[in-house]
Amino acid sequence: MVSRPHPGSKSPPREVFWSASYATKTQHQLRWESTALFPGCICECAEETQRVRRCPENTLLNEDSKIHGLIVQLPLDSVHTINTERIINSVAPEKDVDGLTSINAGKLARGDLGDCFIPCTPNGCMELIKQTGETNTSRLQSGCQLIKKIMYFVSNILVTGIGKPEMVHGEWLKDGAIYHFCYYYHCNSLFVHFSLCSDVTISRSCVPKPIECLAEEVGLFSDEVELYGRTKAKVQLKTIDRLQTQPDGKYVVVTGITPTPLGEGKSTTTIGLVQALGAHLKLNAFACVRQPSQGPTFGIKGGAAGGGYSQVIPMEEFNLHLTGDIHAITAANNLVAAAIDARMFHEATQSDKALFNRLVPLTGGQRKFSPVQINRLEKLGIKKTDPSMLTEEEITRFVRLDIDPESITWQRVLDTNDRFLRKITIGQSPTEKGFTRTAQFDITVASEIMAVLALTTSLADMKERLAKMVVATSRSGQPVTTEDLGVCGALTVLMRDAIKPNLMQTLEGNPVFVHAGPFANIAHGNSSILADKIALKLVGPQGFVVTEAGFGADIGMEKFFNIKCRHSGLKPHVVVLVATVRALKMHGGGPTVTAGTPLPKEYIEENLALLEAGCSNMRKQVENAQLFGVPVVVAVNAFKTDTKAELDLICKLAKEAGAFDAVHCSHWADGGAGAADLARAVQKAADLPNSFKFLYDIELPIADKIRIIAQKIYGADDIELLPEAQHKVDLYSKQGFANLPICMAKTHLSLSHDAEKKGVPTGFVLPIRDIRASVGAGFLYPLVGTMPTIPGLPTRPCFYDIDLDTESGEVHGLF
Amino acid sequence: MVSRPHPGSKSPPREVFWSASYATKTQHQLRWESTALFPGCICECAEETQRVRRCPENTLLNEDSKIHGLIVQLPLDSVHTINTERIINSVAPEKDVDGLTSINAGKLARGDLGDCFIPCTPNGCMELIKQTGETNTSRLQSGCQLIKKIMYFVSNILVTGIGKPEMVHGEWLKDGAIYHFCYYYHCNSLFVHFSLCSDVTISRSCVPKPIECLAEEVGLFSDEVELYGRTKAKVQLKTIDRLQTQPDGKYVVVTGITPTPLGEGKSTTTIGLVQALGAHLKLNAFACVRQPSQGPTFGIKGGAAGGGYSQVIPMEEFNLHLTGDIHAITAANNLVAAAIDARMFHEATQSDKALFNRLVPLTGGQRKFSPVQINRLEKLGIKKTDPSMLTEEEITRFVRLDIDPESITWQRVLDTNDRFLRKITIGQSPTEKGFTRTAQFDITVASEIMAVLALTTSLADMKERLAKMVVATSRSGQPVTTEDLGVCGALTVLMRDAIKPNLMQTLEGNPVFVHAGPFANIAHGNSSILADKIALKLVGPQGFVVTEAGFGADIGMEKFFNIKCRHSGLKPHVVVLVATVRALKMHGGGPTVTAGTPLPKEYIEENLALLEAGCSNMRKQVENAQLFGVPVVVAVNAFKTDTKAELDLICKLAKEAGAFDAVHCSHWADGGAGAADLARAVQKAADLPNSFKFLYDIELPIADKIRIIAQKIYGADDIELLPEAQHKVDLYSKQGFANLPICMAKTHLSLSHDAEKKGVPTGFVLPIRDIRASVGAGFLYPLVGTMPTIPGLPTRPCFYDIDLDTESGEVHGLF
Repeated sequence: MVSRPHPGSKSPPREVFWSASYATKTQHQLRWESTALFPGCICECAEETQRVRRCPENTLLNEDSKIHGLIVQLPLDSVHTINTERIINSVAPEKDVDGLTSINAGKLARGDLGDCFIPCTPNGCMELIKQTGETNTSRLQSGCQLIKKIMYFVSNILVTGIGKPEMVHGEWLKDGAIYHFCYYYHCNSLFVHFSLCSDVTISRSCVPKPIECLAEEVGLFSDEVELYGRTKAKVQLKTIDRLQTQPDGKYVVVTGITPTPLGEGKSTTTIGLVQALGAHLKLNAFACVRQPSQGPTFGIKGGAAGGGYSQVIPMEEFNLHLTGDIHAITAANNLVAAAIDARMFHEATQSDKALFNRLVPLTGGQRKFSPVQINRLEKLGIKKTDPSMLTEEEITRFVRLDIDPESITWQRVLDTNDRFLRKITIGQSPTEKGFTRTAQFDITVASEIMAVLALTTSLADMKERLAKMVVATSRSGQPVTTEDLGVCGALTVLMRDAIKPNLMQTLEGNPVFVHAGPFANIAHGNSSILADKIALKLVGPQGFVVTEAGFGADIGMEKFFNIKCRHSGLKPHVVVLVATVRALKMHGGGPTVTAGTPLPKEYIEENLALLEAGCSNMRKQVENAQLFGVPVVVAVNAFKTDTKAELDLICKLAKEAGAFDAVHCSHWADGGAGAADLARAVQKAADLPNSFKFLYDIELPIADKIRIIAQKIYGADDIELLPEAQHKVDLYSKQGFANLPICMAKTHLSLSHDAEKKGVPTGFVLPIRDIRASVGAGFLYPLVGTMPTIPGLPTRPCFYDIDLDTESGEVHGLF
Repeated sequence: MVSRPHPGSKSPPREVFWSASYATKTQHQLRWESTALFPGCICECAEETQRVRRCPENTLLNEDSKIHGLIVQLPLDSVHTINTERIINSVAPEKDVDGLTSINAGKLARGDLGDCFIPCTPNGCMELIKQTGETNTSRLQSGCQLIKKIMYFVSNILVTGIGKPEMVHGEWLKDGAIYHFCYYYHCNSLFVHFSLCSDVTISRSCVPKPIECLAEEVGLFSDEVELYGRTKAKVQLKTIDRLQTQPDGKYVVVTGITPTPLGEGKSTTTIGLVQALGAHLKLNAFACVRQPSQGPTFGIKGGAAGGGYSQVIPMEEFNLHLTGDIHAITAANNLVAAAIDARMFHEATQSDKALFNRLVPLTGGQRKFSPVQINRLEKLGIKKTDPSMLTEEEITRFVRLDIDPESITWQRVLDTNDRFLRKITIGQSPTEKGFTRTAQFDITVASEIMAVLALTTSLADMKERLAKMVVATSRSGQPVTTEDLGVCGALTVLMRDAIKPNLMQTLEGNPVFVHAGPFANIAHGNSSILADKIALKLVGPQGFVVTEAGFGADIGMEKFFNIKCRHSGLKPHVVVLVATVRALKMHGGGPTVTAGTPLPKEYIEENLALLEAGCSNMRKQVENAQLFGVPVVVAVNAFKTDTKAELDLICKLAKEAGAFDAVHCSHWADGGAGAADLARAVQKAADLPNSFKFLYDIELPIADKIRIIAQKIYGADDIELLPEAQHKVDLYSKQGFANLPICMAKTHLSLSHDAEKKGVPTGFVLPIRDIRASVGAGFLYPLVGTMPTIPGLPTRPCFYDIDLDTESGEVHGLF
């Protein structure tokens, strides 16, 4: 990681260019495979200085006026003189150059780098290939074989500000049998072409950069990073303070048309776009994605790290445990649940006096309120801090939360697909003296604490949000909060690590924040604000942060704008709307698409009529995005059965619908290279004038806000508040929660509330069955229909194929 | 961490001496406080070479024939010549010495070490003190003030083998406002004396060494360590392979007399003893302790990191989440539970054919068994691998586990004190079509997976154990395993990180493995075998590994020997039996001791008669240990109200009972120094001839094994198998599980089954209510009475006081 400069040395803000290199290992042979970013510029083992000068990195270096000079640092004593000369000669004469050839003496003394002292020039690369098992040098030197066989190493070139070293050394890092050279100047994008492979095979074939290396590359200081093993790290929030004056980068949200149940590739597009921006357009780019729930990983869905050649790696780390954030939420959520039932039990079985004596115990002959109890007293309007001064009536009000069991909205959670916990009766042991009640478990990502994590903006803000979560209503109609239960401080303690975003990387070595994953149906389905904020600072004003909004644009994108951006204050620059031929044909009237069954022939043969009819859905979603004043780029995620005519038709219709641009993408098959056109379109769109605005005023009455969403986004004629929903409108208005944004809980499979209605349904009234409040997270969620909150396991869950090779430590069967 | 030497360079095995230094920070002033290990040898700021030569590290260096030479590495350019000379002159002439003064040039260029370039000699120390706020130099130089004010820095001396560098450099590491100098040669033990402080205050006042530093000190290679933040690391199992030929160290188990409900300080003694062995006796010493459950941390008990000046730090990291092992167990355990109910549901609602078609689905026109299904077929005696070849009868047997719902022994778990989950009804949602049943949640540490983690010896062994866990019996009497459910591979994947022991440190900088924490009542209550095995290799033959067994010697120690040592093959050298005046008085007939109420006066005034009567319990427990042929040292854990006469009486009686030695300890108040006598006694005892043996032969009938424990350890006349227990004896004998060791589930508050019977109860018959099998973990557990398996929350749980300071990030209210 970047070492902190001397407090005294005020170095100018610098632009960071990141490296994005990786290698692949087969079982018996180490091979470095690459295709060049700029074909023809790959250095063909010639030793002439001219060649070196022509390589793209040096060209960039020579032509960039911001770069004033460099330090050349070469590790191999025996060849360093000649190499240094060659590098130095390749640099334009107006640059300051210094060859520090002795720096690595200390390293030599350490004895751990001896094996990997390889000259960093093109012929050094040859030497590396030789050392790593490839002996056929004539083959190596011949034509296009070379391009695939040579890992192109530029020398360790350090950018300096006016001749003064600012950034640090590069380093050879050993990972298994592979040596990485981590250099901090530029982006060297490589891509491995395999024949057909599963996602996990592709993921595993790439040795990720050590995460501390990536952290340094993106400009994080070592004391801002906490490693979790070798491929994951947590980033401390103080990074935001340090970078306060740094202008934000461009903010891109990836959303989609109304999808089929198979999904249309939003995650893959998010990762592919960042690979393209970073490794191919040479821009600083960060992906910010959600942490997947572990339940579906073992159930039906499998992993969620993107797919094909656009993935977060290692995918098994991404899909399992990560750094424990979801587990922390499980623990925090269930502590609240246990506190609710235990408190009701103790209130039901004790007198006011007994409760008071236990809640405010004698310690050293004295009773003292804890800070959280003083907060409760203040809320009750009792301005006393001496327990002995409370009147009997005040004691009663203080000790009795008097929770109405029917009103409890707080559920227990597990990160497991356990359908038998959907409805349960608890408290049936004799020790609970008959105080049973009906309850349920949700999947952990449905916990309000997950939504809090996603929407919080600082540690202090999270603590406040966790304290004001409403878990039930008292018999007298007052909201009962986690602060009333005295548990809010403990929740903050349990969540103190989870609040730090998790750094991982793409297949092409670009940085990814994986942080928070609120359920997209009963919550807002977007990754965390904090990750976006840190990433926007790190990429700098010309860089890009790409994040994903769950479900189609009518749900995820609407919530991204109206809830997430409202809480964060961040202004998005571009909407990327992912469309597929498959989903558009479905909207055009194609047969039902079901997971696990083969696709009907309509979807695998060209059918322009069906497709054109279905593009109405895309048009509506493009218009939805434009309601917020943000330019739209349509990404047509191509499958191998799609024809060019089909893809072109979509692009044409998308532009007619008002999209700034529409392009084909093949990042699943080709990695970042397959999304390079998309990246260029996004880069242009980000420079357009931007007039971002919210869809509704937060101060409008609850029903009006719901109606605006239903009419403008879904195309409904009106809404209908059913009695329970009307009751909640009254209750929340009375309790002071009316001015929260709205988080619609609606099916994602249709613009309407009826999953069967495809295309652009019209002439419907949206029924609102009930409304719930996530007061800590900061939204109300109207229920349109019944939302399942914990999935089940099928007859043959994914776990049948999941196994660990105890010899190699490799995970099998994740996909 | 220690860099791996060149594959070619066969350096001789070396002994590692560990550093154990730490610093403390007050709010406005940084102070380095120390008491010298060898008083008089502290260098009193004199600049003479003589002084340097006399310092204990150099004495050791000069007199140790294994040390052939050194490299001196000094960081400050301006003074390095004079310092180098001084150091070099202090070394005996027969040693090779080399002063590498230029090594840090590279570091200087990095710019991150500029502030902390302090000469490493005694007057450098003065300079450090000056830089860190202390300006009164005359005070610094005067008498014993000096000892408290000077952090003694020896220079960065590198041990070499025959003039060749083997170990690496020392380094200045910055942690907040404090600079640590990490040197890898010797142990410099320091201890800070505070006035009265809470555990968390003491813990927080000590800045822990960076964990990668400690890992290097104890001889771990960098590729064997995975950092989890700055104070925790996981150690990979391959360390065992590397150290295969290294002889084990001495193995010490800490147990206790029958305790009061307050506990008698076993954990504190474990940590204090290691601090004494390591930081005071200068021996390599490792503590291996259990990870505490998070439930009690927020419930009644509070934390479990030791106490006072004998703690694992940082205690909040120790008590919360750690590296997520318990969370992984929750996830794995509940995946099994979900799989059981989902499978019963699918079997109940589908035909054989439908089940078969779903379990062995058509993929690409073919049906294929997964490996786990082939294992099931083999178990059923069906030797076929082609799904189309199965007969109808074979299909039925294959697809139907036919679980008897009444026989299910697998429960769901949470790491939360949630009493309302003790007995519940599940499956009440209409989606489960009426298939409800009664179930329960246990606390996570009660999961069999936790016992598997504690008893496993390798990744392959864990996979096997996880596959053979029995969750229920089929209607035809066959055991149903996790392998039958197809979930065992997924369990191994979920547990692949949890199997690696977690490295932390004591207050005095000694290494601690925190790994596994099986419930001490229904499981065996001992930390992991793998942590012990790695630690025994790392400390080397003269070093010590101290581990703790839960509850009193009749339970924890008996299980340590008969279960843990039987599974591990390790041979213990010493039993440390912790006794307190308080508990012995209780056994002598003192009044009831209850948590949360003041102690009766018998316990705070001298009462030799009561004490002597109670020592019968200690005598019995000493005899219990001797049944296994292992020498016993009694550690009398002194409280401030104990009198010298009382402490002496215990020691006298302990020796009369057959203890090798018995000593007073004050490690709670004094840290390692307070357990130095104990450490010396343990060191002597470890050299005694050792005739370790098990109490019973594993092949004896189940009832005989139970009877031997009851009679020999508890002093029962006999056992009585109640009908359910007799039924299980028959069932398990039939199922082939009779040859497992026995894990008694009995109260820890009495040698008998009646918690009220103190001292040494006689004339009782031990009733066995039921017997359960943990087949994967590898033991049967007879239930003597009813064991609570999930605690509840009291009226005022600990969480009322737990809070996070969002400015400083400090955790308040943990204790």
